[in-house]
Amino acid sequence: MVSSFMRVSRRLLSTVNTSTFKAENLRVTLCPPDQRKRKPTDPNSLQFGKLFSDHLLSIKWTQKNGWNDPEIIPFQNFTIHPASKAIHYAQSIFEGMKAFRGVDGKIRLFRPEANMARFLRSAERASLASFDPDELLKCLKKLITIEADWVPNWEFTSLYIRPTFMGTEPALGVNPSIESHLYVIVSPVGCYFGTKIEPVSLYADPRWVRAWPGGAGSSKLSANYAPTLSIQKKAEEKGCQQVLWLYGEDHQITEVGAMNVFVYLINEQGEKELVTPPLNQGVILPGVTRDSVLAVTREWNQFKVNERIITMKEVCKAHEEKRLLEMFGAGTAAVVCPIGRINFNNKDYLIPSESKENISHRLLTTLTDIQYGKTEYKNWTQIVC
Amino acid sequence: MVSSFMRVSRRLLSTVNTSTFKAENLRVTLCPPDQRKRKPTDPNSLQFGKLFSDHLLSIKWTQKNGWNDPEIIPFQNFTIHPASKAIHYAQSIFEGMKAFRGVDGKIRLFRPEANMARFLRSAERASLASFDPDELLKCLKKLITIEADWVPNWEFTSLYIRPTFMGTEPALGVNPSIESHLYVIVSPVGCYFGTKIEPVSLYADPRWVRAWPGGAGSSKLSANYAPTLSIQKKAEEKGCQQVLWLYGEDHQITEVGAMNVFVYLINEQGEKELVTPPLNQGVILPGVTRDSVLAVTREWNQFKVNERIITMKEVCKAHEEKRLLEMFGAGTAAVVCPIGRINFNNKDYLIPSESKENISHRLLTTLTDIQYGKTEYKNWTQIVC
Repeated sequence: MVSSFMRVSRRLLSTVNTSTFKAENLRVTLCPPDQRKRKPTDPNSLQFGKLFSDHLLSIKWTQKNGWNDPEIIPFQNFTIHPASKAIHYAQSIFEGMKAFRGVDGKIRLFRPEANMARFLRSAERASLASFDPDELLKCLKKLITIEADWVPNWEFTSLYIRPTFMGTEPALGVNPSIESHLYVIVSPVGCYFGTKIEPVSLYADPRWVRAWPGGAGSSKLSANYAPTLSIQKKAEEKGCQQVLWLYGEDHQITEVGAMNVFVYLINEQGEKELVTPPLNQGVILPGVTRDSVLAVTREWNQFKVNERIITMKEVCKAHEEKRLLEMFGAGTAAVVCPIGRINFNNKDYLIPSESKENISHRLLTTLTDIQYGKTEYKNWTQIVC
Repeated sequence: MVSSFMRVSRRLLSTVNTSTFKAENLRVTLCPPDQRKRKPTDPNSLQFGKLFSDHLLSIKWTQKNGWNDPEIIPFQNFTIHPASKAIHYAQSIFEGMKAFRGVDGKIRLFRPEANMARFLRSAERASLASFDPDELLKCLKKLITIEADWVPNWEFTSLYIRPTFMGTEPALGVNPSIESHLYVIVSPVGCYFGTKIEPVSLYADPRWVRAWPGGAGSSKLSANYAPTLSIQKKAEEKGCQQVLWLYGEDHQITEVGAMNVFVYLINEQGEKELVTPPLNQGVILPGVTRDSVLAVTREWNQFKVNERIITMKEVCKAHEEKRLLEMFGAGTAAVVCPIGRINFNNKDYLIPSESKENISHRLLTTLTDIQYGKTEYKNWTQIVC
């Protein structure tokens, strides 16, 4: 299963690269067969991000010596100093991607270069070291190739890929880490919200704000997530599954849980319009699924597709006037996730979960057909092996 | 050095407390004398938060079993799962406190109950487990007692104390960790900004915002710091030492680096006034030093002391009209730190670093005199041993 090109002989001295690591210097240390985990035998047993494969990709950096060579090693816990910057100042970023077992048995990545580019932008925002995203993608593909048997083969399952990059310097000064660790772990997953795709219920409370202009909400910093955990708990206390994040005095809708959000409505001009909040305020994560939904629906050319501010007032008015057709979240984990209900100002708004056109379901099919290799679309998929 | 009451015999089964851990159940495992580190012999060698003592306090929690008994163990690295919540979602909080070697040789903590209360509030904001802050303070005092020889005895030195609490569950779902680790490490420190107290230069750029209403800026979440690192780098590129954080379209001044900020000026009514931004917007960390400066200056009763919004426009106008008397930062690490210059809109504003009254120097003396036991003030210090 492991191609020989990956078995680069271990050199006595590690090559040091100041500007980037190189995939050609990747070293592989395989997990002994008798120490490998049992792979899941039932798709219903797959819980999101709880089971990990047998190997991980690990690349270390120091300010003094630059990048070490990349390594694929047996999956293992890390040793971390109690004063590590990642713990104390949240100097950590991540990405979310998936590898899909296609109908032809081949393993595909979906627009991975977009994730790699965003990972690099996040690293810059978090004052972590720079690297060549193409080299990281090559290393990541080698990891997927080694873990090919971990890519599940049931409907709606995939191998979730989690690139992570954290500051590890053991010092409490509030400044960028002079040591850091980039790594990638992978986990076989089913559908994010369980086994069935059901419309989610949302809690919208303008007192809590996910991101703001001049902050880091448009990058995938770990720091964006901690403050959302207790608000998610409030949503659950209100009988809702996720938070609908609002921003500003006009209650602009921005994101849903950890997904981008789309509203499909008949606008005040009587046109059908698919709306998602714009990126220019810096409060929206530029999602790969978001971008894919925009590209696909623009190509359909059946309704207006618009990146613009949309407020709760507009959504509520459209709801009242029966012009609200559909709402859905979009993200790597859930792909497309219809919204069934919004609790706002102690009032429940029932959202038509499927319009006649059933945009969210059509998008889910379109995107997953591309991901699982049923249809080809542009260069959106890359075959790994 | 270690009192016998701390040597609680190790029980076979750990006591489990669902609501809090108890100091009376603290177990101590001492570091063998031959494995202890050399203590610093020169105050100039002390770099902030780089050298740690021989022991740490460690307390673990699981949703299933509640709190384990607290333990003091030899200082050591931790084992962490690569999917740990602290790394991926920055579910981590901390505190900053100091233990001072007084003029009488006794070791004092400065208003530690205020830090413990804030630590508990931060835990709630970050969806970490609750605990009794008094019990944590008792455990922390036992750690300081064991590490008494690590509290340095030179002027302006102290033992910096870093309580930390992080989510450790190895699962990638964005929800609160069902396992977590509270620990305390201590580090002998000198003056935060080096050996001399010199006025700092600040870069003020309204494009970057530290905290916003509805976020977590008023709690001590690790997540508040990561986004500031690259802005700090921009400040250094502009030849400044720290960031002056602004907020809102009216450019309210909010914090300095990781400190609270004070402005001493003659206001438009011709009155002398000490101003610090108010806590009610949720964008200011409620600093213990901030609160102490307010209490002390209110008791002086020599000028108006006000918690109110103050904008760059007001500061610049006061500067122009020679009404700006002093500005300074206030925080645990630096205590009181005069501000010498602000770069704003590509213009340098030189701030009188010491007024005739020399408020910042007077405050530094007043507070450190209390901290080092030269003077008594209310119940602000607690003798550890």
